[in-house]
Amino acid sequence: MSDLNYKEKLKQIKCIAYDFDGVMTDNRVLVDEEGNEAVFVNRSDGYAVARLKEQGYLQVIISTEKNMVVEARARKLGIEVIYGVEDKGKTLLEYCKGKGIDPSEVMFIGNDANDLLAFEVAGMTGAPADAEKEVFNMAYWKSSRKGGYGVIRELYNHFNMTLIG
Amino acid sequence: MSDLNYKEKLKQIKCIAYDFDGVMTDNRVLVDEEGNEAVFVNRSDGYAVARLKEQGYLQVIISTEKNMVVEARARKLGIEVIYGVEDKGKTLLEYCKGKGIDPSEVMFIGNDANDLLAFEVAGMTGAPADAEKEVFNMAYWKSSRKGGYGVIRELYNHFNMTLIG
Amino acid sequence: MSDLNYKEKLKQIKCIAYDFDGVMTDNRVLVDEEGNEAVFVNRSDGYAVARLKEQGYLQVIISTEKNMVVEARARKLGIEVIYGVEDKGKTLLEYCKGKGIDPSEVMFIGNDANDLLAFEVAGMTGAPADAEKEVFNMAYWKSSRKGGYGVIRELYNHFNMTLIG
Amino acid sequence: MSDLNYKEKLKQIKCIAYDFDGVMTDNRVLVDEEGNEAVFVNRSDGYAVARLKEQGYLQVIISTEKNMVVEARARKLGIEVIYGVEDKGKTLLEYCKGKGIDPSEVMFIGNDANDLLAFEVAGMTGAPADAEKEVFNMAYWKSSRKGGYGVIRELYNHFNMTLIG
Repeated sequence: MSDLNYKEKLKQIKCIAYDFDGVMTDNRVLVDEEGNEAVFVNRSDGYAVARLKEQGYLQVIISTEKNMVVEARARKLGIEVIYGVEDKGKTLLEYCKGKGIDPSEVMFIGNDANDLLAFEVAGMTGAPADAEKEVFNMAYWKSSRKGGYGVIRELYNHFNMTLIG
Repeated sequence: MSDLNYKEKLKQIKCIAYDFDGVMTDNRVLVDEEGNEAVFVNRSDGYAVARLKEQGYLQVIISTEKNMVVEARARKLGIEVIYGVEDKGKTLLEYCKGKGIDPSEVMFIGNDANDLLAFEVAGMTGAPADAEKEVFNMAYWKSSRKGGYGVIRELYNHFNMTLIG
Repeated sequence: MSDLNYKEKLKQIKCIAYDFDGVMTDNRVLVDEEGNEAVFVNRSDGYAVARLKEQGYLQVIISTEKNMVVEARARKLGIEVIYGVEDKGKTLLEYCKGKGIDPSEVMFIGNDANDLLAFEVAGMTGAPADAEKEVFNMAYWKSSRKGGYGVIRELYNHFNMTLIG
Repeated sequence: MSDLNYKEKLKQIKCIAYDFDGVMTDNRVLVDEEGNEAVFVNRSDGYAVARLKEQGYLQVIISTEKNMVVEARARKLGIEVIYGVEDKGKTLLEYCKGKGIDPSEVMFIGNDANDLLAFEVAGMTGAPADAEKEVFNMAYWKSSRKGGYGVIRELYNHFNMTLIG
């Protein structure tokens, strides 16, 4: 893809869909003696999600996990979340239909093999620096940051620099 | 061991036995004011355990610790756990007898000196990148990842590449 | 600024104002299933805040976040906190008026874009090693330490060495 | 000190005294919305403390902090703890008197400036790799590991290799 084509493609993005674990977190989960779970998210990603919302982007988290942590985080960020998902490609297509957008207008950020089905249908793809190799290699936009260390903050900078510059 | 012998040996593995702390975690434990404990596990290991289960591998956690965290994690992963173990070699032999498998059909993944007794009886051994030196040197399969950062995820890739390739 | 001018400027500092997340923490937030939050702070920063207090410095945390964690930390450190702040520049000016000090007598330590408004009014500025680039480049004092890993401990050393030496 | 003298000195050690935060932990403290605290300790240090106890060493934690976390950890390790300490040198001398040992028979492991008073009276000193510079430089035994990442595990190896070898 030429730089010009890439810029055109990025201009068409209306929605950013995120995998949760490994993208907004470092993929690690704190487990206590009762099996309760907690994860580390990043304030800088919270800042970026808020700015992207102001700029009019739809944002949604699509997660395989059934745990409530992801819902708690989505609530604080004020964006939608779909969790307990088996096939992220199918789910993304249904989400797009419901919103009246085309999958080519979606950028999907993922880090592990179960994100590849979403990669196949999304118009643009991205991955953290420490994504599983098969996902990192497939992703078009490659973050210099590891999951949970401001991947979305960097994506926000990238959008601004590419679309304005 | 030649590459061919190694592949033959790996083919015979029916069961993967894991030490918990330092393999599925980074060996650190969060302690609160009441002495409650919690640990960081990795979603990518959860993914790998699920895939290995689908492929028919028996999987078990064998831990020295008496804490309930390991039981909570095993429950979520849907695999067996034996904890409060004094002699991991003896425990592994008993486990094998109960399952009707031979210790030579077990791969054991450990990170510290108390895992060496299990290393002596298991057919194949492995260790995280940050295992104690005496254990890392002894282990046949050496993960490039530190404990808690996807050692089992990498082991899953390794099995697939070695046995299919 | 010449070294001599810098030393003179530092001598005039009566108050150190800190952003919280990303300065006293690594910018990450632990979120549990109910959405409760917790952060990692550093004992070495606690030590430094206590020493700076003994030396007569005013110290205040100015944070955008509305979460109670920052208040709990400020209480333990025994310093003031203003949180839920929209415009840190405006808040800093109001704080100075209330204390009867001039903004030029304040050093502000921040790590992200929303700290730049405070940078504009403060007499001296500083940033952790892993601050967002636009903030790190703007900061006069650049810590060699990442946020949450003793930035204030290093600042304390820096004050002592510069003002005594 | 010559290697021979060092070995003689180490042979005389009957007690190991540890600072807690920054030695058994990475000096970071998890703070929640109510101000409750929790820290990350390391299973490998737990292993080492148990082995050193079997070998007959007295072990004690001497901490400035007033928080209950350190007591919870000491209870699990089965060693003594003195916390809320102002002057670690004075406390160490009192501890020695109570136990009928000489301060020259104590090795003290610390990481920050408030440990230097204990360094002055202890027969042998040690520090984690990431101790504050003034403490690291002063310490005789310098761990290759950071606080919370197995400093005591490494010390245990060091004792065994030096005293047996």
